[in-house]
Amino acid sequence: MTVVGVVGGGQLARMMLQEAIPLGLELRFLVSSPDDPVAQVSAHCTPGSPTSLADLERFARGVDVLTFDHEVVDLAALEHLEAEGHRLAPDAAAFATVSDKARMRAALSASNIPVPPSLVTTDPDEAATVVSESGPQVIKLAHGGYDGRGTFFVDDPAEAARIIKEVAGDPVLVEPRLDLLAELAVLVVTGVTGDRVVYDPVGTVQVDGQCRRVDAPARLPEALAVSARRLAVAAADAVGAVGVLATELFLTRDGLVVNELAARPHNTGHHTLDAAITSQFANHLRAVAGLPLGDPSLRSAAVTANVVGRDNHTDPRHLLDDALRLDPGVHVHLYGKAPRPDRKLGHVTVCDDDHDRAVARVATAVEALGGQEVPR
Amino acid sequence: MTVVGVVGGGQLARMMLQEAIPLGLELRFLVSSPDDPVAQVSAHCTPGSPTSLADLERFARGVDVLTFDHEVVDLAALEHLEAEGHRLAPDAAAFATVSDKARMRAALSASNIPVPPSLVTTDPDEAATVVSESGPQVIKLAHGGYDGRGTFFVDDPAEAARIIKEVAGDPVLVEPRLDLLAELAVLVVTGVTGDRVVYDPVGTVQVDGQCRRVDAPARLPEALAVSARRLAVAAADAVGAVGVLATELFLTRDGLVVNELAARPHNTGHHTLDAAITSQFANHLRAVAGLPLGDPSLRSAAVTANVVGRDNHTDPRHLLDDALRLDPGVHVHLYGKAPRPDRKLGHVTVCDDDHDRAVARVATAVEALGGQEVPR
Repeated sequence: MTVVGVVGGGQLARMMLQEAIPLGLELRFLVSSPDDPVAQVSAHCTPGSPTSLADLERFARGVDVLTFDHEVVDLAALEHLEAEGHRLAPDAAAFATVSDKARMRAALSASNIPVPPSLVTTDPDEAATVVSESGPQVIKLAHGGYDGRGTFFVDDPAEAARIIKEVAGDPVLVEPRLDLLAELAVLVVTGVTGDRVVYDPVGTVQVDGQCRRVDAPARLPEALAVSARRLAVAAADAVGAVGVLATELFLTRDGLVVNELAARPHNTGHHTLDAAITSQFANHLRAVAGLPLGDPSLRSAAVTANVVGRDNHTDPRHLLDDALRLDPGVHVHLYGKAPRPDRKLGHVTVCDDDHDRAVARVATAVEALGGQEVPR
Repeated sequence: MTVVGVVGGGQLARMMLQEAIPLGLELRFLVSSPDDPVAQVSAHCTPGSPTSLADLERFARGVDVLTFDHEVVDLAALEHLEAEGHRLAPDAAAFATVSDKARMRAALSASNIPVPPSLVTTDPDEAATVVSESGPQVIKLAHGGYDGRGTFFVDDPAEAARIIKEVAGDPVLVEPRLDLLAELAVLVVTGVTGDRVVYDPVGTVQVDGQCRRVDAPARLPEALAVSARRLAVAAADAVGAVGVLATELFLTRDGLVVNELAARPHNTGHHTLDAAITSQFANHLRAVAGLPLGDPSLRSAAVTANVVGRDNHTDPRHLLDDALRLDPGVHVHLYGKAPRPDRKLGHVTVCDDDHDRAVARVATAVEALGGQEVPR
């Protein structure tokens, strides 16, 4: 049977393990620290850095295929691994596209997928000029941003210039602030042989650029849901994804635009563990291991919210009793991470076709676990 | 947080681990072999024998509470552990009752719970006399039987005498063969503080004394389902169970009788992983760790069947692709066990309110995995 090597030991790796157990799939993990979420559980962890070619080579020799729980990778190292005959899913070319926002947007545009209007530049003066002429802008670094980091809301031209000088030659995207009617996400899973399943679009609610709540399915007119699915499938084709590709979309008055992609299981799909017939983690592993994909259908509507750390000491692991006592029907998922402000420590899902009740139940549980307030 | 020590490393331990991951519960396992199902996954396995007091003492020192994935225990050792202040859930007294069929039946009768008529004896001549006077009987060893082992259908008085001589002083139960209208099971979970949840009764279909198919919920008149639940709750009281107590019942023309108990997660509750809001494994761990219990409600009807080995070489791990390709909606659970005739290698669950379709889908998947034929 295929042995899958997962580069990274965070919560995504940990949830992959949980879903690998029933399938009997053997997973190995390249972890940065024995405290990593998956290292607390799995017997098959190798210490190493995801950006060290030597560590990756050593790890790759013991597995049949490599996949990833994050995008903090070194592209040259991935290309080297492929040249040596190691199989990567997704492959280095897909990573090259999704790990660089400028390149990703260009690839989407080349496939006629609408993206937000933006200027890609490395020139501080050019960025300052856009702000002084067109008013407040959003500046996004091409590399390394997540959970709102690497994104700046700027209304001062000098501030725009300063940000670009700091990243010294790495391109940034300068975009007008869009008037968003809604934010959505769609997960598409592509198998190694090209078979494909698409999860129902979800609505996402962000706080300071970090996803805090997911409503599944998205509360949208059917025609828009169909458009969102089509765009996500087109994005998966454009990227050449294998496994999960998460597509984040904005709904504006002019229609849908694709804002962001991630080529791995994604925070907007955690509800699938409890609410779908096959979870995003199981389908990612099935795709990567060359197994047939599972039914992505929702078994009921669901709401998921992240348990986001308040401070360095409020620990959901010590508040589990309270949260479970308040509501015997919530699905609590803790990641085994020490609390820290704005850190994702877990998530809670409630499967309930009454949307308002589901939101209230999730919020009650998350807040009982000591997480930051859930947007209602 | 409570550290739970699980004595045993089989599939029940493995499914406990799967369900402990989202709760962030720390589990440690006392395993007989590095090939044990849980030892293939968990980073926290200690080699040792479940019947060695020295091994148990060493293991118990590193955990807050001990629980079990089987009943092959040494009662004196368990009592010794308790005397040393270690916490066992279930406790030694509960094990004393459930691990001895004669004592279990006596405890049930003392609580006015109907049991099959039986003679408990150690006398070969007495057993032979029952067979010659009353015709064919079922002889059950008081200790160590499971999956049909330790149960004998006897119509020859000499054969009855021979069985009793072989077990040399250990009592046997001699019972008439009952005319069964149905076989049922009910899981009751009891918390350390006495809180309790009851799963819906399930119908079980046995082949040669081994459970092969579970229909959830049982297709029964509501009044009978209520009676079955009441008897199971009374049994949990009679035993003083903590965690899961599985009660197996016969439906005869004279009503329900309790045939068998198991004080651990049970084969008749595997459907709860996919079909209930909270699985039997999650609730067992919540009970043992002193956490509030979760909602046991079914989210839909479901049918589960075991993947039972045909021979020493047909391995479901090598047939997974076929099974998943035939039906993208089945839930396949493999235990990581080498194939052997009549060995439980995994199970398959289908959540489907159309019962006949669910049975057909489960049977197709189990047989594609190389398991023995599922009773229709």
